[in-house]
Amino acid sequence: MKYIYSFSEGNQKMKDLLGGKGANLAEMTNLGLPVPPGFTITTEVCNYFLEKNEYPAGFEHDLNEKLDELEHAIKKTFGSKTNPLLVSVRSGSKFSMPGMMDTILNLGLNDDTVAAMIEKTGNDRFCYDSYRRFVTMFANVVMGVGHDHFEEALDAAKKDKGVELDTEMGAEDWKKLVGIYKEIVKTHAGREFPEEPREQLRMAIEAVFSSWNNKRAVTYRNMHGYAHNLGTAVNVQSMVFGNMGEQSGTGVAFTRNPSTGEHYFFGEFLLNAQGEDVVAGIRTPEKIDMLKEKIPAAYEKLFEIQLKLESHYRDMQDIEFTIEEGKLYMLQTRNGKRAAAAAIKVAIDMVSEGLITKHEALKRIDPNQLQQLLHPSIDSKAKLEILAKGLPASPGAAAGKIVFNADTAYDMAETGEKVILVRKETSPEDIHGMHAAQGILTSTGGMTSHAAVVARGMGKCCIAGCKDAQVDEASKTLRIGGEVFGEGDVITLNGSTGEVIRGLAPMREPELTEDFETLMAWADEVREMKIRTNADTPFDAEVGRKFGAEGIGLCRTEHMFFDTDRINLVRQMILSKDAADRAAPLKMLQAMQREDFKGIFRVMNDLPVTIRLLDPPLHEFLPDTDAKIKALAQDMGVEFEALRKVASSLHEINPMLGHRGCRLGITSPEIYEMQVRAIFEAGKAVVLDGVKPLIEIEVPLVGDVTELKRIRTMIFEVAAEMEPLNFSWKVGTMIELPRACVTADQIAKEADFFSFGTNDLTQMTFGMSRDDAGSFLPFYTEQGLYKNDPTETIDQEGVGQLMRIAVKLGRSTKHDLEIGICGEHGGEPKSVMFCQEIGLNYVSCSPYRVPVARLAAAQACI
Amino acid sequence: MKYIYSFSEGNQKMKDLLGGKGANLAEMTNLGLPVPPGFTITTEVCNYFLEKNEYPAGFEHDLNEKLDELEHAIKKTFGSKTNPLLVSVRSGSKFSMPGMMDTILNLGLNDDTVAAMIEKTGNDRFCYDSYRRFVTMFANVVMGVGHDHFEEALDAAKKDKGVELDTEMGAEDWKKLVGIYKEIVKTHAGREFPEEPREQLRMAIEAVFSSWNNKRAVTYRNMHGYAHNLGTAVNVQSMVFGNMGEQSGTGVAFTRNPSTGEHYFFGEFLLNAQGEDVVAGIRTPEKIDMLKEKIPAAYEKLFEIQLKLESHYRDMQDIEFTIEEGKLYMLQTRNGKRAAAAAIKVAIDMVSEGLITKHEALKRIDPNQLQQLLHPSIDSKAKLEILAKGLPASPGAAAGKIVFNADTAYDMAETGEKVILVRKETSPEDIHGMHAAQGILTSTGGMTSHAAVVARGMGKCCIAGCKDAQVDEASKTLRIGGEVFGEGDVITLNGSTGEVIRGLAPMREPELTEDFETLMAWADEVREMKIRTNADTPFDAEVGRKFGAEGIGLCRTEHMFFDTDRINLVRQMILSKDAADRAAPLKMLQAMQREDFKGIFRVMNDLPVTIRLLDPPLHEFLPDTDAKIKALAQDMGVEFEALRKVASSLHEINPMLGHRGCRLGITSPEIYEMQVRAIFEAGKAVVLDGVKPLIEIEVPLVGDVTELKRIRTMIFEVAAEMEPLNFSWKVGTMIELPRACVTADQIAKEADFFSFGTNDLTQMTFGMSRDDAGSFLPFYTEQGLYKNDPTETIDQEGVGQLMRIAVKLGRSTKHDLEIGICGEHGGEPKSVMFCQEIGLNYVSCSPYRVPVARLAAAQACI
Repeated sequence: MKYIYSFSEGNQKMKDLLGGKGANLAEMTNLGLPVPPGFTITTEVCNYFLEKNEYPAGFEHDLNEKLDELEHAIKKTFGSKTNPLLVSVRSGSKFSMPGMMDTILNLGLNDDTVAAMIEKTGNDRFCYDSYRRFVTMFANVVMGVGHDHFEEALDAAKKDKGVELDTEMGAEDWKKLVGIYKEIVKTHAGREFPEEPREQLRMAIEAVFSSWNNKRAVTYRNMHGYAHNLGTAVNVQSMVFGNMGEQSGTGVAFTRNPSTGEHYFFGEFLLNAQGEDVVAGIRTPEKIDMLKEKIPAAYEKLFEIQLKLESHYRDMQDIEFTIEEGKLYMLQTRNGKRAAAAAIKVAIDMVSEGLITKHEALKRIDPNQLQQLLHPSIDSKAKLEILAKGLPASPGAAAGKIVFNADTAYDMAETGEKVILVRKETSPEDIHGMHAAQGILTSTGGMTSHAAVVARGMGKCCIAGCKDAQVDEASKTLRIGGEVFGEGDVITLNGSTGEVIRGLAPMREPELTEDFETLMAWADEVREMKIRTNADTPFDAEVGRKFGAEGIGLCRTEHMFFDTDRINLVRQMILSKDAADRAAPLKMLQAMQREDFKGIFRVMNDLPVTIRLLDPPLHEFLPDTDAKIKALAQDMGVEFEALRKVASSLHEINPMLGHRGCRLGITSPEIYEMQVRAIFEAGKAVVLDGVKPLIEIEVPLVGDVTELKRIRTMIFEVAAEMEPLNFSWKVGTMIELPRACVTADQIAKEADFFSFGTNDLTQMTFGMSRDDAGSFLPFYTEQGLYKNDPTETIDQEGVGQLMRIAVKLGRSTKHDLEIGICGEHGGEPKSVMFCQEIGLNYVSCSPYRVPVARLAAAQACI
Repeated sequence: MKYIYSFSEGNQKMKDLLGGKGANLAEMTNLGLPVPPGFTITTEVCNYFLEKNEYPAGFEHDLNEKLDELEHAIKKTFGSKTNPLLVSVRSGSKFSMPGMMDTILNLGLNDDTVAAMIEKTGNDRFCYDSYRRFVTMFANVVMGVGHDHFEEALDAAKKDKGVELDTEMGAEDWKKLVGIYKEIVKTHAGREFPEEPREQLRMAIEAVFSSWNNKRAVTYRNMHGYAHNLGTAVNVQSMVFGNMGEQSGTGVAFTRNPSTGEHYFFGEFLLNAQGEDVVAGIRTPEKIDMLKEKIPAAYEKLFEIQLKLESHYRDMQDIEFTIEEGKLYMLQTRNGKRAAAAAIKVAIDMVSEGLITKHEALKRIDPNQLQQLLHPSIDSKAKLEILAKGLPASPGAAAGKIVFNADTAYDMAETGEKVILVRKETSPEDIHGMHAAQGILTSTGGMTSHAAVVARGMGKCCIAGCKDAQVDEASKTLRIGGEVFGEGDVITLNGSTGEVIRGLAPMREPELTEDFETLMAWADEVREMKIRTNADTPFDAEVGRKFGAEGIGLCRTEHMFFDTDRINLVRQMILSKDAADRAAPLKMLQAMQREDFKGIFRVMNDLPVTIRLLDPPLHEFLPDTDAKIKALAQDMGVEFEALRKVASSLHEINPMLGHRGCRLGITSPEIYEMQVRAIFEAGKAVVLDGVKPLIEIEVPLVGDVTELKRIRTMIFEVAAEMEPLNFSWKVGTMIELPRACVTADQIAKEADFFSFGTNDLTQMTFGMSRDDAGSFLPFYTEQGLYKNDPTETIDQEGVGQLMRIAVKLGRSTKHDLEIGICGEHGGEPKSVMFCQEIGLNYVSCSPYRVPVARLAAAQACI
């Protein structure tokens, strides 16, 4: 096992072993670029060390050898009193985790070497400043001494001297302070500050290793779904100094503009400064063009190098450099992070420049990023006061007056007010209020809570599970920290970050570029799966179609039931004593649903529309408190007691596992019959207008083939009555129960198609309600118990295993069975890839995620 | 295809084709016994007819041929004016369904043949009575004319004549009535009564076929789990008459006493009577011994035949016979139904008689029947007033005063009162009341509702889901029909039938016989699976061990938490602000749990005890209404608002899918730590007394191996602290989530054992909460959508499939992994068989079901 690689021994493909930074330093070295010499300790050593708390056998020997080599190569020596070697020690893992782990600069300084440095540079103030910075950094990062101790000492020293600014401190002041700092270290770390450079180095390496598991890093990996067992490499590199005068400097540059994607050399630099200063923003840097005037030779060299790097890496590079007394050194290169619009422009441009292929261009874009382009967003340059942070449940931005219930939201929106609906949680009864609101903020519930799902479906901004927000709907107060907000107070939500912002934040409108359309067209050429949208209204259908949906994968009929003018009919139906009594409200609902379906069929002319029959339990249509029941009873002219009795008889302890889905259709067949009639009537009506409906009737919550068989029989009976039906129609089912998966061969006998309802399937498979998971799921993902939040991305090991079984069994009965997915996962890139892998025919997602799914589906084929 | 078999063409093995009755008539015919000739139409014809609504081609030809044969054989002719053939037409399916389908006697009577019969018998009154009975029966069964019309006409005729009893009616009266009856038929059936015997026969056959699908028959099949596609055969048999004078008679007999199993010829007969009369109980029959005196030759013959039949069939026979003018005819034989105690005695006796083997004896007993012997039962001979009927949720009988809440139940029981706890439904907070009550009656919930599960666990009588009972806990009333019962009114529950009985019904104590012990010993010799019991207390453990349990398969620690003296400590713990605050109540709980475990370990010395760590969500320990919260706040000396806030923050929408099981153990590790310490402390303590505890710590609701790994690590850490632990202990998990099944290979890496929690697994797999299924599940089983209620018997296709996967995956990781089951299904015979089939090591069930499981496990091996 090789523990350490000199930069000249590695290459860019060795990221697993050397980390991104190390691999790229090696690559640049081998390209002949001016990289200060150094070496990389592998991630394997890190993992060994983290597991055993010691170095592997022979490591220290190798380290000494590499140090000897390095000293020899650059003719400097650790601890030398004349020509001392100073190094930087930096972490670098496979995936870039900026700022998450530790870095130590100027390692090798001690009382002897600082003197040698002064001798060499003639700048004693700079040298002592570097020294005291090194002591602070080392003591803090490696020895765990709090920053505040050093701050206090510095303040005291400045007070003593009667000055206010660091710049007013002289060489002697810094020197004295180094002494004081070392005392602080002794007091708080319980040992002397290590003077011996090789000891400093060993301690620094261990500290970098350990930083792999610091809280920030763990959280970052969880956020980005990176594995926790990768480990970090450690890069030990000889220091160069950009702060040795006006012919020295440091900078950060991109080979293209990372915000816009425009193709020109873009960057910033500072003369007479060290690396960190540009990023930290202590001084305002200059534009890279100015370097041409200030140090022309270095600029020319840098310009050449960036051209070379981009064409070598075939991607936009983010580079760091330092100029030491006129000589350019490269300290880092990596693929540059870029905004969504920039990502697209860069990819498209590179294809026309012949640098990359279309397939490569498609792989360059993170599908999730596309969403940034589809929603209005908060102007990130504005100064914002963040009040609290919740889950970024539905992207976009929204601002408005706080309201605490759906009715008020509806009423205020009617008068033209913009409102934010703030609830503990939402329920289907709040739909009209959610529709009316600009955005939704809830204090409980997760990324797939009702509020989140519905908001995403509506393309509406939502922050869910905002724990810092205490919502009291009764007293109409929102408490954040010590502050209380009431109805009418204005807040802004950033659904892309989960931030709740005080007042009205400035917004930016989205613009869909020609590049965007080009990229989508390329994606469509490549992908094999169809993309459909989940849409309950003609408007949603139109949005979906505009974004490229090739059908509706899920039309939830219950949302039509909750409309204000209909819910009372639904209630009348529920309260009916018998079938005869029920006939009148059903007839009226039928006429209304027919019109809904006509509208949707028209928009989706010639594209398939999957309509799910009624799914929620009936109690969702009735109020749940005595007060609301009383009000409704008065409204409907029925007796309070009678209504309360019905509501209480329908009450369920676990509604998710209750009397819903096809169970309703089986015990109360007249409801499904009505819906099927409405669907067929709508089909017949639009055919007369030359529209071609492709209808797929979907039966929810089937657990046993007998359920589907019974409802399918009913549908065929209704169809027979209504002949001729001169359009295409099919009958299929949601696969959303574990039992449906393991009996899919039976179910396929009665199904023309399957559609995975992965929301419910995930909940049943895990035994975890999305509405209740808020109390433990965040803990699980934070602690790495779940690699991913299964409500966000399909759990491939568990839920995915059941899906594989269902696909296999279903197609063993009908080899060409059409199978899709309509859960929330249908628009999530990793899940889309999985759907391609297991052979689904289509994914369906909310309208605003259609482009995301198109791209992800294309990537899955590359 | 052969449609019809003469009795001489069949045999007892052809039950599928000829039904039980037909097969046995054939068998007896071939044994040379005196069976009136006849033939059997196959079940295949029935199924064809039911599907196509017509006879298969050639059937009518065959029927005529068989009739010709029959006429020829007994020298009587259908419709003959001198020697007419009369037949009975009876259904007969594979499984006996007594009284469920239709029978027609004396078919062939019409105005001509009745005259011939009078000529033959010289008894005109008897002949006309038979005729009018035939018309009534035929009109009702075949032509669908209601009985009441005939009753009315009869009443009118009697009134006319001025008499009150049927026996006062003469031949002429009956003759006149036949005319009136035929008019009634014409009016209500819309056609003439068929006079032609072959037409009568065809119509009767069709009616018998159709009766396969009448409501009674369907319900009966559902109740007994018989398939609906078997069809019925039709037996056409020449009539013999037991009512032709004092040398004629009819009777029913058993080869042994069916109530007690005693070995003597047992039966009853009536002289001068027709078949039905004995069963219908119109006249009081005489004991069979008396026949020896009345018609000695026939008795001798009958006695010989019954001996022959029992040794031929090698089982106790239930036989029907008729004596026509001194000549004995056999009309039926079948294996006799018998009470539980009798079943055991007969089986054991037959083994010692050398008639059957031990294995056969074991197979003869329905394991479920054993339960009759383990619970006190209502004296079925007593006169009872049934008020309502619910689900027979937990067998046995209980009587007492009605109470409507657990506290009252507890308080009244303390004073020595016997009470019945009547609730809409029960919750874990009611445990003490349930313990205190004699029995439990709930108006909602199913066979595995809380009340049902807990009651069975306690071996306590329970009727659940009694829809006719309206319970209003607030006003303390129980409304049944128009009547209102209040607190203190006495009722009796029959948990074996679901009957609610007015007042105090007389009871019978159970006695365990020597035969019972013998049978159990035989079962133990044969079976391969171990039988454990579910027990939460030393008392339950003792009962289980008494019944032969070889360990505890599930000890639910939460039941210990609900005890009155502990729940407040639990609440204190929940309300604690931090770990420090929580330490005190946890310490006290730990001491209490340690004592619980010590008691259980002592009882189960040298047998394994599986202890499940806390499972229910914390909100179950807090009250759920403001009023109760207020009371508790006062009790605990905390602020109402604070308590309400905690309760409301713990509230869950779907508690079954919420923050429970190992999720609790992960987010609040101190609770599980406390429990593990208590377990180990108890182990260490009893070892000092020479007791050998075999401890299995079980982690509930594991969905991902990471959960188990984390808790296992914690347990090992606690163990390391407490060394030396000089007893055996293991760590394993419940398999109760679909995800656990499909990732069982991963989970097995961290598990020493698996135990299927099929209650939850069934609920998750079906997406069906046992608490909410009452609104649709009965409909499903009634309508045959589910073959079995999956909460009662393991759903082998779905849940069972997941179990197979889990066993296969689990043992692919550890080939000798110990796997058991501890759900309610563990004591249900069909499920026990399935557990043997998939290779489980043990089943665990409530103490009172242990003998059932022992027998079922033995049967599974035969």
